[in-house]
Amino acid sequence: MAITTCIFDAYGTLFDVSAAARQAAAEPGGEKLAEHWPQLAADWRAKQLQYSWLRAITGDHTDFWSVTQDGLDWALEAHGLAGDAALRERLLALYWRLQAYPEVPQMLARLKQAGLNTAILSNGSPDMLAGAVQSAGLSELLDDVLSVESVGIFKPAPQVYDLVLQRFGVAKAHVLFVSSNGWDAGAAAAYGFATAWVDRAGEPVDRLPGRPDHILPDLVTIPELARG
Amino acid sequence: MAITTCIFDAYGTLFDVSAAARQAAAEPGGEKLAEHWPQLAADWRAKQLQYSWLRAITGDHTDFWSVTQDGLDWALEAHGLAGDAALRERLLALYWRLQAYPEVPQMLARLKQAGLNTAILSNGSPDMLAGAVQSAGLSELLDDVLSVESVGIFKPAPQVYDLVLQRFGVAKAHVLFVSSNGWDAGAAAAYGFATAWVDRAGEPVDRLPGRPDHILPDLVTIPELARG
Repeated sequence: MAITTCIFDAYGTLFDVSAAARQAAAEPGGEKLAEHWPQLAADWRAKQLQYSWLRAITGDHTDFWSVTQDGLDWALEAHGLAGDAALRERLLALYWRLQAYPEVPQMLARLKQAGLNTAILSNGSPDMLAGAVQSAGLSELLDDVLSVESVGIFKPAPQVYDLVLQRFGVAKAHVLFVSSNGWDAGAAAAYGFATAWVDRAGEPVDRLPGRPDHILPDLVTIPELARG
Repeated sequence: MAITTCIFDAYGTLFDVSAAARQAAAEPGGEKLAEHWPQLAADWRAKQLQYSWLRAITGDHTDFWSVTQDGLDWALEAHGLAGDAALRERLLALYWRLQAYPEVPQMLARLKQAGLNTAILSNGSPDMLAGAVQSAGLSELLDDVLSVESVGIFKPAPQVYDLVLQRFGVAKAHVLFVSSNGWDAGAAAAYGFATAWVDRAGEPVDRLPGRPDHILPDLVTIPELARG
């Protein structure tokens, strides 16, 4: 079935979530992160996601910026850096303008040239996403940026994926959903989208009810996939 | 307010979930686990929990034994052990009869001597829990074993915690809920139980809406806490 609409997860998929800790470690004063920034970034990300899922289950929604700060506070404490207010502020500032993966601009440009709809569907709050999209120079390459804030619950709640159908007026099978998060790709597949999981870390596929249709090492071949 | 009822999480709290991988590594033929059984156990546990949360959000419930196998399959593949059917079966068999932490029998006996209600409230399926309780010799020390299977959704959905009130006919504030899982203790605190988080690994407290009332290194002092 012809794909008309390509929807991208943001954090981890278009934007490199470990970039904030990596950049902070490379700056003057970042020596304290030299050894353990990869683990700090992984712990931060794991807690950010964990808190988003737990809040989706209990109905205690808050926005993703709060959850991002909560995850960072846990991770800083776990690494003995809880009192370092300057480091906390620096990491949050860098998270606000994460680097996009290098293949992203050309990949999106090719989708637009092919006449496809392009959008982000993300847990991120609208202001976080606006900051990241703008600093990565992607504004002109995306038709829309959809945030879970308009439904008040995090992924993978089905009402989040519904936002795509409402925005673009398309059937599920005409949507290619792309995520580097295995759980997000799995849920989108179970929901009924065509899905591509970008397995940047070479991890096993998640054992969830939905399985992604495509497993890719990066985003380079998305335009070929989308055009069938 | 007087505590009348002590409710325990099972996996990680009464039963040592890393015991299966640790034991398998120590057995003849377990040399392949020698180096990385702690990481295998951690990955298995992380995916087991992740899949339980994701299924709670999407409404795709299955029982915890299925989720336990799914998590193990992911972890075995991640450690290059996906084809080892004998190891898989051995780890699952050991999971069915996990060791209780050493302080558990006496702690429960003291609660019963003090006239308190005692029970498990767990994600585990009834047959998994029956296996673990029996092999650890705890059957006589627990008034009941409550499983999420009776409501068909995993923790921390509020209807799981409701099972305690329904079973014992008590108000929330008379319940002491004990868990080594920070997210479970946090959710139980937000729900309205008095809570104790058993922080066996010395981790930071989770940044969730509910905070545990007590943070303990193990279960030894639970009887003192419960009797105020």
